[in-house]
Amino acid sequence: MELRLTSDEVVRIKEGEDIYTALKRAGIYLMASCGGKGTCGKCRVRIVEGDAEVKGYGKLTQTERESDIVLACQTVPQGDLLIEVMKESRLVVGDKIAIARTRDLAEYLKSYGVGINPTVKRLPLNLPAATITDNISDLERLKRALDEKGLKDMRFSHEFVAELAESLRNSNWNVELVYVEGRGVPAEAIFLTPLEGCNRRYGIAVDIGTTTVVVYLANLITGEVVDIGSTYNSQMRHGDDVITRIVHATEGGGLHELQEAVVKDINTITDSLMERHDIKSCEVDAATIAGNTTMSHIFWGLNPGSIREEPYIPTLNFFPMWRGGTARLSINPQSPVYTVPCVASYVGGDIVAGVLATKMHRNPEIALFMDIGTNGEIVIGNNEWLMTAACSAGPCFEGSGIRCGMRATSGAIESVKIDPQTYEPVISVIGGGHPMGICGSGMIDAISEMFLMGVIDRKGKFVKDRTDRIRQGEEGAEFVFYKDEKHRKDIVLTEVDIENIVRAKAAVYAGVTTLLGEVGFAMDAVEKVYIAGGFGNCLDVEKAIMLGMLPDIPKERFVFMGNTSITGAYLCLLSEELRREAEDIASKMTYIELSVSRNFMDEYMSALFLPHTDMSQFPTVAGMVK
Amino acid sequence: MELRLTSDEVVRIKEGEDIYTALKRAGIYLMASCGGKGTCGKCRVRIVEGDAEVKGYGKLTQTERESDIVLACQTVPQGDLLIEVMKESRLVVGDKIAIARTRDLAEYLKSYGVGINPTVKRLPLNLPAATITDNISDLERLKRALDEKGLKDMRFSHEFVAELAESLRNSNWNVELVYVEGRGVPAEAIFLTPLEGCNRRYGIAVDIGTTTVVVYLANLITGEVVDIGSTYNSQMRHGDDVITRIVHATEGGGLHELQEAVVKDINTITDSLMERHDIKSCEVDAATIAGNTTMSHIFWGLNPGSIREEPYIPTLNFFPMWRGGTARLSINPQSPVYTVPCVASYVGGDIVAGVLATKMHRNPEIALFMDIGTNGEIVIGNNEWLMTAACSAGPCFEGSGIRCGMRATSGAIESVKIDPQTYEPVISVIGGGHPMGICGSGMIDAISEMFLMGVIDRKGKFVKDRTDRIRQGEEGAEFVFYKDEKHRKDIVLTEVDIENIVRAKAAVYAGVTTLLGEVGFAMDAVEKVYIAGGFGNCLDVEKAIMLGMLPDIPKERFVFMGNTSITGAYLCLLSEELRREAEDIASKMTYIELSVSRNFMDEYMSALFLPHTDMSQFPTVAGMVK
Repeated sequence: MELRLTSDEVVRIKEGEDIYTALKRAGIYLMASCGGKGTCGKCRVRIVEGDAEVKGYGKLTQTERESDIVLACQTVPQGDLLIEVMKESRLVVGDKIAIARTRDLAEYLKSYGVGINPTVKRLPLNLPAATITDNISDLERLKRALDEKGLKDMRFSHEFVAELAESLRNSNWNVELVYVEGRGVPAEAIFLTPLEGCNRRYGIAVDIGTTTVVVYLANLITGEVVDIGSTYNSQMRHGDDVITRIVHATEGGGLHELQEAVVKDINTITDSLMERHDIKSCEVDAATIAGNTTMSHIFWGLNPGSIREEPYIPTLNFFPMWRGGTARLSINPQSPVYTVPCVASYVGGDIVAGVLATKMHRNPEIALFMDIGTNGEIVIGNNEWLMTAACSAGPCFEGSGIRCGMRATSGAIESVKIDPQTYEPVISVIGGGHPMGICGSGMIDAISEMFLMGVIDRKGKFVKDRTDRIRQGEEGAEFVFYKDEKHRKDIVLTEVDIENIVRAKAAVYAGVTTLLGEVGFAMDAVEKVYIAGGFGNCLDVEKAIMLGMLPDIPKERFVFMGNTSITGAYLCLLSEELRREAEDIASKMTYIELSVSRNFMDEYMSALFLPHTDMSQFPTVAGMVK
Repeated sequence: MELRLTSDEVVRIKEGEDIYTALKRAGIYLMASCGGKGTCGKCRVRIVEGDAEVKGYGKLTQTERESDIVLACQTVPQGDLLIEVMKESRLVVGDKIAIARTRDLAEYLKSYGVGINPTVKRLPLNLPAATITDNISDLERLKRALDEKGLKDMRFSHEFVAELAESLRNSNWNVELVYVEGRGVPAEAIFLTPLEGCNRRYGIAVDIGTTTVVVYLANLITGEVVDIGSTYNSQMRHGDDVITRIVHATEGGGLHELQEAVVKDINTITDSLMERHDIKSCEVDAATIAGNTTMSHIFWGLNPGSIREEPYIPTLNFFPMWRGGTARLSINPQSPVYTVPCVASYVGGDIVAGVLATKMHRNPEIALFMDIGTNGEIVIGNNEWLMTAACSAGPCFEGSGIRCGMRATSGAIESVKIDPQTYEPVISVIGGGHPMGICGSGMIDAISEMFLMGVIDRKGKFVKDRTDRIRQGEEGAEFVFYKDEKHRKDIVLTEVDIENIVRAKAAVYAGVTTLLGEVGFAMDAVEKVYIAGGFGNCLDVEKAIMLGMLPDIPKERFVFMGNTSITGAYLCLLSEELRREAEDIASKMTYIELSVSRNFMDEYMSALFLPHTDMSQFPTVAGMVK
């Protein structure tokens, strides 16, 4: 049977197979936060011609159903079918994501007062050629030269030795040894290159986010970031959030599929960066990756299954320095890959890298670090102690679980103002044009505006008859931000959406207060709040305070850091001292498991109001709504 | 085109392809000492029906040619062909070789006064199950338990970590850790097994000879040799001697082919031993291999090319402890494989193992160790010094380069007596029946008998008209030991054969005198002569002395050791102290490169007589021939 798309693509579909699966097999990926289980309502397609069996409609509205819109994962064609894939449903992986280069990282590295000291070292060696009177073996000749330089007991892998004879002779015994120096353990030889022709030194720093993958190509001698690249994490084909990915990983072949997806993303970026700058793979000596615990496990092909099941145990947090070839990276297969250490199942290397990037671990002032991305992780502490927790905020600020939710890309409503007289919303859309959905910063704007205008009450419920923008939808009351006849999809926030967002912000805020409670500090003791993550720069602090997500402390204490995970990965790529600091951070951090904390549950319940049950915690907001 | 065999096999052959290559492709291997270059004359087939282009006849006699016998490697069919493969030309690899279990090795091990201490250790661990309050990662849990046992800084491979989560949970946190303890370096985790179900411990010791492969399966707790197995080294398909193998290894794909051949031999034996004793591969923890330098390189997939070219440099002599999986052994892929260290390009781990097996490195008396196998290696020394050399004797005692030469297997003439009156030879054939050739001990017998009876002179030339057993053959004079009308192949020794054998014995003897000369000792200072290698047990010492191969010292000083390479491999499998001794032996041995030694050339020239130019070195023989 054939599945024809209005975009002119044709896909073969098997008897009894759903549209989502058939498209996936053909390399056409749809948004599917739930991984194709029929619950997220994102994989929308319109049946133009032909018959199909529809197993369920999930979150689709009556209007959508009447317009022949179905969920691809719940629809099985009964013959040839012509379908239209809704624009907002199509996942274009491999898309480049605009990443602002926020600062000169080489300068920033200098500000740490550490030397440039990558994971790999290079040692030029002019070996005497073998003769009949000096006929020791190649490896002994190399060891003898290393002994003279004070490098004893180096380890040699089978791969290294297998290429030794040829490398030495091809380079006429003048070679550069690339090796990793261990800490308290013997150094390990990585590979040999000729003294000439392959002597520039580069490395890649990688941030593996649940949603995006970012690669920085850095010069290992100067520290300069030569170029950067990024893409969506292709694992998104298998679900939006880490839990859905873990479930997929534990299903037959899923782990391999997920590993391959993200490694291919990294390789695609890296290859194009190397090509653009005419760099050979033998010149890319080292890599550093930072990702949450699940992403780090999957990158290394390790089953993340136990992360999801109580008592939530990762296989490891401190990763040995394995090789690029083991991860199937397209850099030199012998290059060491440093994994920024993780802390616990839901606080990973991205957070450790983040703390490193803020320098909060070096300063005596008490600081709060918040990374609100696909999940929400927080760290409180200073140069003496660090405490961390994951808030299970869920990925709603990235669009998941919100009817019209989407990521902060072209077509997303990113900010909202509501006219105090007419209640008409004024929206701003990324890239202009008509909106396709609403992203995290838009949601925060919308809710705090609605709250301020009295459209919703402190519980997040609509105040009846306040404006005819509020209407009764299929899931109950909803506020219409944009009416769109042509696309049959209005952009709304429903009461259920608001409830979800309030839960998410409550989880983040309760995380902060619980951690503070653990160490017995008041909110005002927090002298700096570092905000990292996806909507870092476009978040309106005042609105987020009004929502009750950020604490009500002076605005000047907030610092937007952008993607701290990649910054930390970069720092670890370049400096041995900073790798040690990252490990100190990870070892020092006390992890609080919020899911079993009574305090957290209490704090969470109190935070389910706008901005909070205890208005004394939000004096500024109290003044405004009065 | 088709190649039919009188044995009813049918093989497809390509246009322009020679018979040797076509048969090889079909898995039918012929003897080919030269590796199929047309020079050794071993790959004999008879054309029964059909036409063929014959490019050369090599060493075939006129009679053979007239009987339509050709060399398979020099013959290209011009259409379908029916051939008979000569019985002695077919190489039946995978054949078991009878190996005498010369002694109770566990008892012998005890005589060294060392403990049983294999390369791998096992540590039972009852880990506390992970809980929400004790939620460190799996690897940290393991490390914590190891810390308590005083094992710090263990290394963990990616393979180990990849299986960690499942291993721990499947065994309900009660596991046995299998690990390798380094010397001055951190220990390395190998794998985990459940506390129950996989707790017997076995290892394999392997002797990789150029001609044969021997495997001992040993109990790692008691030291008992559970079973033994052996086969011809399938690399023989590609040539008899190490040089031909090296040449093959440096040709496209040859190295991989040779590695695969020998590893498959080892696996075939090991699998059948494991099956016979109902042993699982997870119970085979460790392996030790001993082989000459070329065999050791090929086993590990390392190009032996530079071993052959001046200045004769191996890639390495001391092999890191790589894993079974790297060598593609069928034991547990994580099991460490210990390679008995080599000394130089032509003195390998088999010789180091041999010295270890003789204990000469522990005793003050000066001893001589001679391994006369495919090549000839000698060691002289005691507990203070050791000196070694390879004699380039060539594989003639294994049949190579001798017209009717063959290995000491069924059909070989193994001993010869010549009647002093009639000059009629009385032969003894291995396995009885009519002889197919003559093996090493038969050659030594034959030549010393002929010399004693005056059939040949001191130069190895036939004394004309002494007997009509001497006839004029195509390569000159030859002595007929067996007349065989039916098989069209008489068993003879030609003057050229005798010259080759005399050269070989001269190389061995000159090696001994050169080494003695280096240290300034007379022959009589040698208090023990340990004889190892293929014809160890059936060598007649007196005849070998008469030939001038062994020194003319009292017979009681000679000790036959059999296969010392496998004995040494076994000792290294079981004992850490003996592995250290093996390494001490290898480090301590002074290697003399005879090919560039003037003394050796002089000694060699003097030894080209029977038994020697200088009869004062052979007083007993002088007495007999007088």
